[in-house]
Amino acid sequence: MDPSQVDVPPLKDLTIDNITDNTKLINGQCPDPRLRYILERLVQHLHDFARETRLSQDEWMTGIQFLTSVGQICTDVRQEFILLSDILGLSLLVDSIDHPKPPQSTEGTVLGPFHSHEAQIEPNGSQISHDPDGEPCLVLCTIKNTDGEPLEDVKIDIWETDSKGFYDVQYPGREGPDQRAVMHSDKEGVFWFKAIVPVPYPIPHDGPVGKLLKLLKRHCYRPSHMHFMFDKKGYDHLITALYLRGDPYETSDAVFGVKESLLIDLGTVSAEQASQYGVKEGSKLITYDFVLVTEEESKKLREKEAMKAMEKLGRRMKLYNGLPVPDVD
Amino acid sequence: MDPSQVDVPPLKDLTIDNITDNTKLINGQCPDPRLRYILERLVQHLHDFARETRLSQDEWMTGIQFLTSVGQICTDVRQEFILLSDILGLSLLVDSIDHPKPPQSTEGTVLGPFHSHEAQIEPNGSQISHDPDGEPCLVLCTIKNTDGEPLEDVKIDIWETDSKGFYDVQYPGREGPDQRAVMHSDKEGVFWFKAIVPVPYPIPHDGPVGKLLKLLKRHCYRPSHMHFMFDKKGYDHLITALYLRGDPYETSDAVFGVKESLLIDLGTVSAEQASQYGVKEGSKLITYDFVLVTEEESKKLREKEAMKAMEKLGRRMKLYNGLPVPDVD
Repeated sequence: MDPSQVDVPPLKDLTIDNITDNTKLINGQCPDPRLRYILERLVQHLHDFARETRLSQDEWMTGIQFLTSVGQICTDVRQEFILLSDILGLSLLVDSIDHPKPPQSTEGTVLGPFHSHEAQIEPNGSQISHDPDGEPCLVLCTIKNTDGEPLEDVKIDIWETDSKGFYDVQYPGREGPDQRAVMHSDKEGVFWFKAIVPVPYPIPHDGPVGKLLKLLKRHCYRPSHMHFMFDKKGYDHLITALYLRGDPYETSDAVFGVKESLLIDLGTVSAEQASQYGVKEGSKLITYDFVLVTEEESKKLREKEAMKAMEKLGRRMKLYNGLPVPDVD
Repeated sequence: MDPSQVDVPPLKDLTIDNITDNTKLINGQCPDPRLRYILERLVQHLHDFARETRLSQDEWMTGIQFLTSVGQICTDVRQEFILLSDILGLSLLVDSIDHPKPPQSTEGTVLGPFHSHEAQIEPNGSQISHDPDGEPCLVLCTIKNTDGEPLEDVKIDIWETDSKGFYDVQYPGREGPDQRAVMHSDKEGVFWFKAIVPVPYPIPHDGPVGKLLKLLKRHCYRPSHMHFMFDKKGYDHLITALYLRGDPYETSDAVFGVKESLLIDLGTVSAEQASQYGVKEGSKLITYDFVLVTEEESKKLREKEAMKAMEKLGRRMKLYNGLPVPDVD
């Protein structure tokens, strides 16, 4: 770069007290108002964190090495940074901010690091788990809008672990996807499939996030659950999961995902259901009625909450692509 | 883990407003008071950052992918997380917090990502750069304590780039260290060596940090400088650098390292110096008198500043291994 083109405020003799404002100043050259605002808050909190803890250079280096190891253990099928975000409560927080739900709709929860794009599209009634050791479980669901109308042709991603608590992608020698599928709801808003009863399992704890949990004396278990993700044009993207009530980890999920409205009681397949769905009478049953919110309603709610939070901050803000930025005009 | 051993506050139905306190609560099981305090502040700031920006899930995923790529580009000789910390002003801030300097001593500055442990121990007078294109430069220095007494046998790490602005470790095919050395001061506190005149150079910008700087419309240059690191038992570890006054990037260092007290004017070797040190008359000359602070003095100053900062926070704190933690007794 031609030095004559360097057009920044003079930066010299930066100290504990003035480096934050100066870093914000130089980042203030960013032409994108949203990235500019994100960086402004990031620098403020990063620096405040160091000042409030009086972070030592040794601790800083431990942090650098920790983050490096988190990045280095990531692969196409392992996302340790998502896991880190999950165990720090950030993932659930971001989901709550981005997908506010009116009371009558299905709540969201953490995506987790194990969603993959390998799942096959399967018709209603498919067997999505092929683990012979899993306890068979019939899953019968509906999807409606907040007016109670059935939603047709919603794309649904479903994923769960096998009976040992591992997702398919955790097996190095796997031949293809298992315990996951993409389905579509029918005219009545129904989708159903054959799976296995979810089991509790430890999140991957052989890496840096596991080490951190150990230092914090936290366990690494998630209660039994099955993941669902819903996509339909005009409706807010919903990432959620159903949790089995009474699981030993129901109130201590390592990634903070459990919500009362997402807890289900495992039922039993009746004789009638057995013949209708082609499964054994008395086998396990999950039923749930999901409710999606329109994109418009979600957007309104999200923007209302955003402006309320900005008022608390005491800054003059405006919305830019639906997200807050300082109002500098 | 045996579920009966799970001893945490019940965590369910976590929301934008209560997740922070609950995450802090579960992390509060950590037996180490310092790690507990660090995590408490980390979670608070991480969550406040998300709440104040109303971070969207897309932005969160961009962040996850960015951090992953920062981790993945790291190698034994490339530390992109240090670089990220540098360009966000965090590195300089942490140095300032951890190594407060009384006015009469040499100020510290950023370590940067290019210090290595490969440097050879060299006697006074060594040629530490073997780049034939570099402009020869004699470097004559002394090290004293704050009472003006010479310090003998201080271990000094020195490193600079070649004439093209690259450190040795940036060359994949390099045969061994160059432009770096470890030296020791003599009885008079003197150390001297033959190097080359430092040049400005871009920090590595072919990775994620370079991309971020580009998005922020910041240049990636550092002004001409030479790195120094000082170790002596009983004295505070000093990481610093000397900067050439008048460099085009003197007031826009990409990593915020320049301080007035570390700026030097390039001199010229006199006839007498030429014969004394075995270099050409008229060649370039750097002279500097470094002043180290005792560990005790540095500790006192650091702890005083820490307690002052804690008072501002309005919390009852105490020192634990010299670093603040909440005083819960």
